[in-house]
Amino acid sequence: MTVYNFSAGPAVLPKPVLEKAQAELVNYQGSEMSVMEMSHRSSLFDNIIKEAEKLLREIMGIPDNYKVLFLQGGASLQFSMIPLNLAVGKKALYVNTGAWAKKAISAAKAIDGVEVEVIASSEDKNFTYVPEITKDMVDQEAAYVHITTNETIGGISYQTIPDVGDVPIVADMSSNILANNYKVEDFGLIYAGAQKNIGPSGLTVVIIREDLLNKEPIFSPMLDFAVQAANDSLYNTPPTYAIYIAKLVFEWIQELGGLQEIVKRDQEKAALLYDAIDASNLFISPVDKNYRSLTNIPFVTGDEELDKKFNQEALAQGFQNLKGHRSVGGMRASLYNAFPKEGVEELVAFMKKFEDENGEK
Amino acid sequence: MTVYNFSAGPAVLPKPVLEKAQAELVNYQGSEMSVMEMSHRSSLFDNIIKEAEKLLREIMGIPDNYKVLFLQGGASLQFSMIPLNLAVGKKALYVNTGAWAKKAISAAKAIDGVEVEVIASSEDKNFTYVPEITKDMVDQEAAYVHITTNETIGGISYQTIPDVGDVPIVADMSSNILANNYKVEDFGLIYAGAQKNIGPSGLTVVIIREDLLNKEPIFSPMLDFAVQAANDSLYNTPPTYAIYIAKLVFEWIQELGGLQEIVKRDQEKAALLYDAIDASNLFISPVDKNYRSLTNIPFVTGDEELDKKFNQEALAQGFQNLKGHRSVGGMRASLYNAFPKEGVEELVAFMKKFEDENGEK
Repeated sequence: MTVYNFSAGPAVLPKPVLEKAQAELVNYQGSEMSVMEMSHRSSLFDNIIKEAEKLLREIMGIPDNYKVLFLQGGASLQFSMIPLNLAVGKKALYVNTGAWAKKAISAAKAIDGVEVEVIASSEDKNFTYVPEITKDMVDQEAAYVHITTNETIGGISYQTIPDVGDVPIVADMSSNILANNYKVEDFGLIYAGAQKNIGPSGLTVVIIREDLLNKEPIFSPMLDFAVQAANDSLYNTPPTYAIYIAKLVFEWIQELGGLQEIVKRDQEKAALLYDAIDASNLFISPVDKNYRSLTNIPFVTGDEELDKKFNQEALAQGFQNLKGHRSVGGMRASLYNAFPKEGVEELVAFMKKFEDENGEK
Repeated sequence: MTVYNFSAGPAVLPKPVLEKAQAELVNYQGSEMSVMEMSHRSSLFDNIIKEAEKLLREIMGIPDNYKVLFLQGGASLQFSMIPLNLAVGKKALYVNTGAWAKKAISAAKAIDGVEVEVIASSEDKNFTYVPEITKDMVDQEAAYVHITTNETIGGISYQTIPDVGDVPIVADMSSNILANNYKVEDFGLIYAGAQKNIGPSGLTVVIIREDLLNKEPIFSPMLDFAVQAANDSLYNTPPTYAIYIAKLVFEWIQELGGLQEIVKRDQEKAALLYDAIDASNLFISPVDKNYRSLTNIPFVTGDEELDKKFNQEALAQGFQNLKGHRSVGGMRASLYNAFPKEGVEELVAFMKKFEDENGEK
């Protein structure tokens, strides 16, 4: 049985990447060592981390005045590190678009000396849209405006990045990094857990404009962006194997034709599923059409029992991890870069069959 | 050419572990998924993390009143987390035995509200021994006594754990965890970066006695032992692949006969090298014989040029990462659990040959 893995993260990785990792696992390029066994100070690993950074810079078009950091702790640690580094003694502005934005807001509020203000929210419509942000809503003295470019659970995403004046935008891009047309120069700081579009869990990518690096040291060097940047992410031992896999994923993107080609494919895959939902009399997308995510697509029948039946039958057909997040129910298809188009086609066919068998006549 | 990897970490892993990981990399146990692609909330991964914990408990004899946490950030993040969680408003006692102890001390001093006191140091003899700690040196009101059970750079280790009364001992065991005869119940908290005796970098194991879990929340859930313990290390996405490799390493230890057998082998390997050094007229161990490390063995000729020549010729023979840490020079052989005995035998033979060619006649 062909298995299609719709997991929201850790998620499907490109098959050629896994096959290359497998071939090299015991003996990396004739070194007689696994990448896992290499000193992080060795020239072999130095090549890997430098190449990973170089490729990511090419793919995303990261300007020279941004640092790329390979850290640990996931977006959840960034929720605390960012206000700690950027906003103590200042105001930090947040946009509330759902579950992950809320976590970022809550973590910022817990940092002493940071004044958190939520300047916009889509809670009034159960987080089914992205609120409009205009420059006049933004205190120009604030440390930053924090947005969540894609809500993994809610399934909404920013189609364009708002103009907020000179205040830097800080973005949790965990679930749609490398799956969007944003420009890095529209952000002051971008962060993302790797386990969706980059590689294995345990690696967090931070892209930070150099002028935003903290001038005052943070109490812990591990939580200090300036220390991590000054040490090229080697202040201590980084997650070396996850960085290696990320490098393979970046190579795979480049071989396919770069970000433009990847996003085109993501759009085609998402359109297949959204079109099927829109054409259906059974399945509904809970999300405002103008803010639909390319990467996380929730849908429901409106009947919890029927959702459950769908999930059970889908699982039996090899559609794994389609069940919606426990907080919202229904179904959710996460279509990250490595998810194959055939998987979407087969899901759509299965949905039609299910609707024929279970929908209203 | 056979390559022997003497790296201090990330370090050599057991060949059978790497081969099993390789065989399963693309398709784990018929799931058609890599472990890297699995949701951390899936039953497949749940089995892996639970089994890893169970095995570690068996191997180390961890009592039921201790929590086992699989975290991120390395020992370096623990240097800050431990005083933050255990010692705010209290006194924290430290023993200074070298480079890593110093880092722990420095990080603790940076935490507001923690009174750091260094109760003993071996700095007077350039950290070549472990100072004696007696109960009367220990303020019984202190939050803990912090020790570094093995100094990776200096090459000294605690042969026995001191009796400090009722004050819990907190130990950085990064470089000799699973390579000692200590009893877990002699510690309040043990922590270790995985990249020496456990698995790949990016995973940190913390073993904490339940009564030491913080009662007051820490500003960041990711830095909060009680939150991590309450969530069984799944507060956010853990480093899933590193945990899987750790599980394979624990299985390998059990298959070899458990910790007792592993330590016996470590002792034999270390004795081979120490005996060769002691019998040599060229090579010297800088360390007091009573505190020699089993896992990190530095040695020198006393002549920097000759050390350099040795390192160059050794590297040409496939002895990788033998060069001593930049802060101390000379040579260092890290003989972790996965390092093969034949590698030590070949090193010893090479040292004899080098001495014949270069030593005083």
